[in-house]
Amino acid sequence: MIIILKPDASRQDADEILSQIESVGLKPLYMPGTERTVLGAIGDERVLAGLHLESHPLIERVTPILTPYKQVSRDWHSQDTIVDVGGVPVGGELFVVFAGPCAVESREQMMATGQAVKEAGAHGLRGGAYKPRSSPYSFQGLGVEGLQILQEVSQKTGLPPVTEVVEAGDVNTVEQYAAAFQVGARNMQNFRLLTLLGKSRKPVILKRGMAATVEDLLLAAEYIVAEGNPDVILCERGIRTFETATRNTLDLNAIPFIKHHSHLPVIVDPSHGTGVRDFVAPMAKAAIACGADGLLIEVHNDPRAALSDGQQSLYPDQFARLMQELHSFARAAGKSMTR
Amino acid sequence: MIIILKPDASRQDADEILSQIESVGLKPLYMPGTERTVLGAIGDERVLAGLHLESHPLIERVTPILTPYKQVSRDWHSQDTIVDVGGVPVGGELFVVFAGPCAVESREQMMATGQAVKEAGAHGLRGGAYKPRSSPYSFQGLGVEGLQILQEVSQKTGLPPVTEVVEAGDVNTVEQYAAAFQVGARNMQNFRLLTLLGKSRKPVILKRGMAATVEDLLLAAEYIVAEGNPDVILCERGIRTFETATRNTLDLNAIPFIKHHSHLPVIVDPSHGTGVRDFVAPMAKAAIACGADGLLIEVHNDPRAALSDGQQSLYPDQFARLMQELHSFARAAGKSMTR
Amino acid sequence: MIIILKPDASRQDADEILSQIESVGLKPLYMPGTERTVLGAIGDERVLAGLHLESHPLIERVTPILTPYKQVSRDWHSQDTIVDVGGVPVGGELFVVFAGPCAVESREQMMATGQAVKEAGAHGLRGGAYKPRSSPYSFQGLGVEGLQILQEVSQKTGLPPVTEVVEAGDVNTVEQYAAAFQVGARNMQNFRLLTLLGKSRKPVILKRGMAATVEDLLLAAEYIVAEGNPDVILCERGIRTFETATRNTLDLNAIPFIKHHSHLPVIVDPSHGTGVRDFVAPMAKAAIACGADGLLIEVHNDPRAALSDGQQSLYPDQFARLMQELHSFARAAGKSMTR
Amino acid sequence: MIIILKPDASRQDADEILSQIESVGLKPLYMPGTERTVLGAIGDERVLAGLHLESHPLIERVTPILTPYKQVSRDWHSQDTIVDVGGVPVGGELFVVFAGPCAVESREQMMATGQAVKEAGAHGLRGGAYKPRSSPYSFQGLGVEGLQILQEVSQKTGLPPVTEVVEAGDVNTVEQYAAAFQVGARNMQNFRLLTLLGKSRKPVILKRGMAATVEDLLLAAEYIVAEGNPDVILCERGIRTFETATRNTLDLNAIPFIKHHSHLPVIVDPSHGTGVRDFVAPMAKAAIACGADGLLIEVHNDPRAALSDGQQSLYPDQFARLMQELHSFARAAGKSMTR
Repeated sequence: MIIILKPDASRQDADEILSQIESVGLKPLYMPGTERTVLGAIGDERVLAGLHLESHPLIERVTPILTPYKQVSRDWHSQDTIVDVGGVPVGGELFVVFAGPCAVESREQMMATGQAVKEAGAHGLRGGAYKPRSSPYSFQGLGVEGLQILQEVSQKTGLPPVTEVVEAGDVNTVEQYAAAFQVGARNMQNFRLLTLLGKSRKPVILKRGMAATVEDLLLAAEYIVAEGNPDVILCERGIRTFETATRNTLDLNAIPFIKHHSHLPVIVDPSHGTGVRDFVAPMAKAAIACGADGLLIEVHNDPRAALSDGQQSLYPDQFARLMQELHSFARAAGKSMTR
Repeated sequence: MIIILKPDASRQDADEILSQIESVGLKPLYMPGTERTVLGAIGDERVLAGLHLESHPLIERVTPILTPYKQVSRDWHSQDTIVDVGGVPVGGELFVVFAGPCAVESREQMMATGQAVKEAGAHGLRGGAYKPRSSPYSFQGLGVEGLQILQEVSQKTGLPPVTEVVEAGDVNTVEQYAAAFQVGARNMQNFRLLTLLGKSRKPVILKRGMAATVEDLLLAAEYIVAEGNPDVILCERGIRTFETATRNTLDLNAIPFIKHHSHLPVIVDPSHGTGVRDFVAPMAKAAIACGADGLLIEVHNDPRAALSDGQQSLYPDQFARLMQELHSFARAAGKSMTR
Repeated sequence: MIIILKPDASRQDADEILSQIESVGLKPLYMPGTERTVLGAIGDERVLAGLHLESHPLIERVTPILTPYKQVSRDWHSQDTIVDVGGVPVGGELFVVFAGPCAVESREQMMATGQAVKEAGAHGLRGGAYKPRSSPYSFQGLGVEGLQILQEVSQKTGLPPVTEVVEAGDVNTVEQYAAAFQVGARNMQNFRLLTLLGKSRKPVILKRGMAATVEDLLLAAEYIVAEGNPDVILCERGIRTFETATRNTLDLNAIPFIKHHSHLPVIVDPSHGTGVRDFVAPMAKAAIACGADGLLIEVHNDPRAALSDGQQSLYPDQFARLMQELHSFARAAGKSMTR
Repeated sequence: MIIILKPDASRQDADEILSQIESVGLKPLYMPGTERTVLGAIGDERVLAGLHLESHPLIERVTPILTPYKQVSRDWHSQDTIVDVGGVPVGGELFVVFAGPCAVESREQMMATGQAVKEAGAHGLRGGAYKPRSSPYSFQGLGVEGLQILQEVSQKTGLPPVTEVVEAGDVNTVEQYAAAFQVGARNMQNFRLLTLLGKSRKPVILKRGMAATVEDLLLAAEYIVAEGNPDVILCERGIRTFETATRNTLDLNAIPFIKHHSHLPVIVDPSHGTGVRDFVAPMAKAAIACGADGLLIEVHNDPRAALSDGQQSLYPDQFARLMQELHSFARAAGKSMTR
């Protein structure tokens, strides 16, 4: 930890802080400069948090040396983690595609869509039973009935189901139906939910919040891993910026950053990341090219009738074409679309 | 609703859409242009949502005429709503200040801080028992014990307590202790929580999310009001932007915007809005000047020892001075600091 | 143009505005609704600009139907424009790579770097003689001497040179040395400069500003094209967002958006787009995958000694490896790296 | 300067860097830690820039201790600078209001507006002769004729004129007419222009760029001051964020930040900062409350006929009312509206 003092801090103030640093077992360092005095603390600086130095009225700035996350970092675990989602390995050579509608709307819709994505080569099935919607006047999901439909279609197609959990109180229910939990962008910092998921044995697909930095995302993953569940898959799905040409700004820079700093697998959701059906395919290809481990794509058997996100859902034939085209990009990236 | 067709939409496509508009009881309009054909739908366009026109492959853009929120808008209710928080009216002539520590840490800390803010003239007491924290390694709050301490200090000082609820499962518990619920920025779109709060009889202070537009905030308030609880107080607390000089960017433009478009009261949190102790006072004054109905301010009896947010907490004497200085700004704004 | 009136506008106010619309030769439309009255104007709505309706105190909102740009749009010109940069076609089947140092620093540095990128298969040579730097204490470029060195290395390697022009007064000078002008992010809305470049016969690589929407970028291009120079290449180089993990947020969504709405070629600068050497290669691959026409990449013969942007410059061997790896991505995208 | 090494840097790598630090006359420090080795450099770290350590492949991060700006900081000059604009002191007890139309459109418009703002109590006259506009199809200003009109109205009213300069080539011309140069948001990093203004004897009102941090703004001011012109007035006018409810997000946090870190005066432009006529008055009051030294406000004798920015221009009677209301806020802030 590097501590920069305000110009009016005296030598005595510095000494007081240095002895505090020593008191928690770290090695203190005194570096007087011409315009500012700088202090250092050598050792596991996470123990320094208890001193709350950033609140000190004579301290200008505190700069950590280490990342605030720990178990999710590559420093902690240098090799890639591979997460098993209902038999599908995520994070290895296989480039994994989870596809399906935004929301489970009916048995018919789900069955038609499930079979279409299966035939096109998808590896997993997505579909929301609980839908967080900006407006109270929008469709909010079918709840448990939706989970049952999802499970039935999963069994029929052999595709493991992933579905969103929006609330700590639903974790037990969702766990019975899903091969992996999905945590949506709006819940990325619902720490109660994360803590509970950390106690589950099912994997978690954790989507980045709209205002979350990659560091925030890694810290949210740390909540889950620190509780004992190592099976977290990160998901980039676009952040909110000033640009309104697309629904969100897909931040693909995050992919190499995460690959560099963390051992967890990371997938991309180009459907929410663009919000525009025509842009899903190019951004899916970009995701594979920059090193992502998979995709989460919205497909609907009849997008015009979709109760949510129809404008960003692929038609089944568009999805089938995209899956075909992805093969050569996967090869170029040293990945494979099939096992 | 204004519907702009893609250049390749035919007259027949337009007719089909027009008859859909008619089928839900709205008056359709056909406006052929030189480069684009535009359709209109006159009437309560919220019923159009069921048609999901934005998913239509031949529709370029759909522009609503009305706001997506309804009951929280001034169109619905033209006069200012005044919300009663444990006897303190928010939204009227009184400029209301809720003050206290970020988190309830101990009986001693809370009592000392509560008495200090009472003496300085605060109208309500804040203090968190459940703390959502970015890192799993940070202090997470005292839970029910914290609520009990808060209640005790509230009774001693006569200041109504406001405290955060982070999870639907906690609503009943928090309701027993709080004069008003606080919903934090990270939970602004926790729709399950909002819906439950809409069924409570206690007021809700709803903080704007870091990536939420003012329209998102008003829609979140609509969730609560639509469920039957009219007592919502909006709170601007800063949004996330590229600027890192301050913790957040306090968006005071939101105050006149909300005052213009909604009848709900709106308060400002300059502590989170700046993240810097020295900037809390100037921004508190700015809030009053641009029309806010009150403030939410972090004060700690000993900020250097604070377990969270110490760097943005005022010392008791700083708070007392600020309260003195606010009087003349309140008068200039046609408000009063005392009843 | 769609014009939404405020609730207090009377029928007479509407009639007045309708007659104004008629007076400029457009067909007016009157659409009274239950909560708002909406007016329409059919025809080339750009002539409406002269009425400044957005300033009208009784008008709530004005929504254009057409894009504000014209000649750069696909509506105007449906086929891809191919721009010739010193013999290199940009915008066709060839995937074009312009490479070289951020700044021309010396004859030796430029010659070594130029030969390295030539051998690796680059199609053009970049190098700045005028450097806009945030701090007045940073290296500002060699000026005309830099242009002369660039030209010499270009002749030696056969790679056409592209270089930045920062000021209207320099256009004539730069034109003598460059195969294409580069307009930097900070000058994207230097309209005097754009207008002058519109009168040149040399192509212009126009980089997106840090706070510019894609629409702003297309409007800036319109300045050049409207003056008579059709040879504009757009360049995505990252925008400024709250994310600080990378220097900028590379907005690759912009590539399919631009390809859809404009006929101009678009290239990507992954060096500025990430600011991190290790992330340049993955994002270069992502650019090709999502449909870009080329790259602008910083390479330095000795990045540790670079006078600017060393942390994002590739070493020559890294660049050579990247060029090799790009081939299979180019093929997958239906492009070619060689002519 | 604090230098954090990558985990794979050896002791020998560290020694090499330490000797480089010593070679430029700074005192090197070696701080080995458990997970990272940290190096320090004590002394005027600005000389370290020449080493370009951020490009070093074994350096993870470089953290400066001092601000990158120097002469504009309070460390350099602790007392408030007062800038004289044609006899009007900016930065002292007087709260200064510059008012007038966005653009000079005609002699009549300018005269009517000038007299109105004079009567209402404005201290200076604004009006643009050169207008940077997003679209090439918008009004671009009257040029020299506009400057002449501005000068005439200034002489008639006794209000010193401030006007925008958009291009280095225009500096000499504008200097003959203006009491102060205005540099617009789009030119904040037009370093050639800034350097030239640094050689002028006339004051400069420097507006913050839409994507500029406050640090960027201070660095841009440093360009002017470093060239010898100490008379810079900073101007907050809103930044670009995801919020679209207002044209820009007025970042008033910047006011206390600038007052704390710099000795230069700072004013606020609530017209561009909101883009909405009705929000100008509340934000003008907020500006005074949080410590700004003055305002830049758009007033037009007939906003409905304005050739630019009509929707954010005040009517003369609105401006007169605002000036009346500002008096009590100025008093509360310890400032005065009259000399």
